[in-house]
Amino acid sequence: MSSIYKEEADSLIYHKDSYLVVIGGAEDKTTDKTILHNLVKLVQKKEPKFVIVTTATEHPDEAGDQYVKVFHSLDVENVNVLKIASRDDAWREEASDELLKADCIFFTGGDQLRISSILGGTPIHDALQKCLGSGKVIAGTSAGASMMSEIMVVEGEDKEAPSRCTIKMAPGMGLLQGAIIDQHFNQRGRIGRLLSAIAQNPQSLGLGIDENTALIVDHKNEFKVIGDGVITVIDGRHIDYCNTSEQYPDEPLAITNVTMHVLPSGYGYNLSKKTPIIETGQKKL
Amino acid sequence: MSSIYKEEADSLIYHKDSYLVVIGGAEDKTTDKTILHNLVKLVQKKEPKFVIVTTATEHPDEAGDQYVKVFHSLDVENVNVLKIASRDDAWREEASDELLKADCIFFTGGDQLRISSILGGTPIHDALQKCLGSGKVIAGTSAGASMMSEIMVVEGEDKEAPSRCTIKMAPGMGLLQGAIIDQHFNQRGRIGRLLSAIAQNPQSLGLGIDENTALIVDHKNEFKVIGDGVITVIDGRHIDYCNTSEQYPDEPLAITNVTMHVLPSGYGYNLSKKTPIIETGQKKL
Repeated sequence: MSSIYKEEADSLIYHKDSYLVVIGGAEDKTTDKTILHNLVKLVQKKEPKFVIVTTATEHPDEAGDQYVKVFHSLDVENVNVLKIASRDDAWREEASDELLKADCIFFTGGDQLRISSILGGTPIHDALQKCLGSGKVIAGTSAGASMMSEIMVVEGEDKEAPSRCTIKMAPGMGLLQGAIIDQHFNQRGRIGRLLSAIAQNPQSLGLGIDENTALIVDHKNEFKVIGDGVITVIDGRHIDYCNTSEQYPDEPLAITNVTMHVLPSGYGYNLSKKTPIIETGQKKL
Repeated sequence: MSSIYKEEADSLIYHKDSYLVVIGGAEDKTTDKTILHNLVKLVQKKEPKFVIVTTATEHPDEAGDQYVKVFHSLDVENVNVLKIASRDDAWREEASDELLKADCIFFTGGDQLRISSILGGTPIHDALQKCLGSGKVIAGTSAGASMMSEIMVVEGEDKEAPSRCTIKMAPGMGLLQGAIIDQHFNQRGRIGRLLSAIAQNPQSLGLGIDENTALIVDHKNEFKVIGDGVITVIDGRHIDYCNTSEQYPDEPLAITNVTMHVLPSGYGYNLSKKTPIIETGQKKL
């Protein structure tokens, strides 16, 4: 990561009108469109300008068109697709300018390594952080969600026991600090790979986001859950034993005393205090 | 459940030579056969008598033949298949006698409700408990594992967010008390359904057993893990909030402060104290 990014990241503070919307993939685009509808509502501007970033996918036209149509159907008229497919593209001044003029920036799905390897350390990276500091909304789905954390899961077996050291991680774009995000979470059986990730450094919080489910992070460093599924929070601070090691990487993981929370729509979480926020009106045990 | 069972269950104590071997399904039957080999070693008898119970499956001949061949390959000569396919069969005196004369009883996979509905409250049920009190080994795989707990998961969505009340449970055979067993655990993405089960009564311990993985429970109420995968222990005692309810059963579950342990081969757990047992020689954090 560039030193510009590093300095920015250390002092990343969201504007009070800024939100990060992290979507676990497969959000509804045809019926009630709950998540995208909520995203539009978050952008507190008349005639807002949306920019779709298709860097994650090798089919940018298709992905771009799809989201332009969806946002049009949600009464957002001004939607541009910003195709940044190379590092050259990412250094073009017009590209960063377009982000800085947008009210909402939306990252499509695809491959999270495309996002980080193409945008990491470029003026786009810097612009994204500036956007969060100036009242804009940034959203991303699937790969566009994973890339938001400081560390992202790149590869790991679905539906497998957690292993000692086979998971592949990489530095993400750091828009959400202190967390590792995984998406399509329950639908792809990813508890094993998220546990493997958290085992390697329990300081990071694991956030497993289900399909058609999102978390909305605000300037108080709290998130609220929306959508059909749940957010699985893996808090490793109290882990008292772990066999993670580069030796015998394929061997299964041993890990004890992991704390887990499962939070559906309406619930939330304070990322600074690491405590769940219970929806008002629900029974407290 | 019959009153006979109830009285027995309350005072179920394993003989010091008795073990319960609970296998998460798909145990290796062709290469190193680790789990079945360990099972044979547990039976501390020269020329032991094995009985295969095929009640769970509607293809008893196939399942029976398969395990006869496997145990023969592990130098167990005396292997009988006991086909109990109806409650009439289960009340036949010869059937219980055969169990009481066996050194090891092995339950095949299939449908756990077939086991509980055919054997529950019959002399077979009583005989199984007597076997654990008299130095015999009882093993079961997949459905044959699930039926061992007091409460078993009958139906629940794989690879889905946990829900408030869609999971179906039923009374099991109670050979392992205080726990709810789920099998094919990581391979079928079953964390959601086990969390849903534990949410309904956090007194029960959730035990998710991976394929080709088993836990061996001894008379001290401790288990040891063997095999390729892990045991996921869900301890709900410290849950401080939960929205489980018959109302809106399809809605996703909210649950906070679940404790989880992941234990591979060589590790163990004390079911009475609810504490993991760390393998000697492993680094303690």
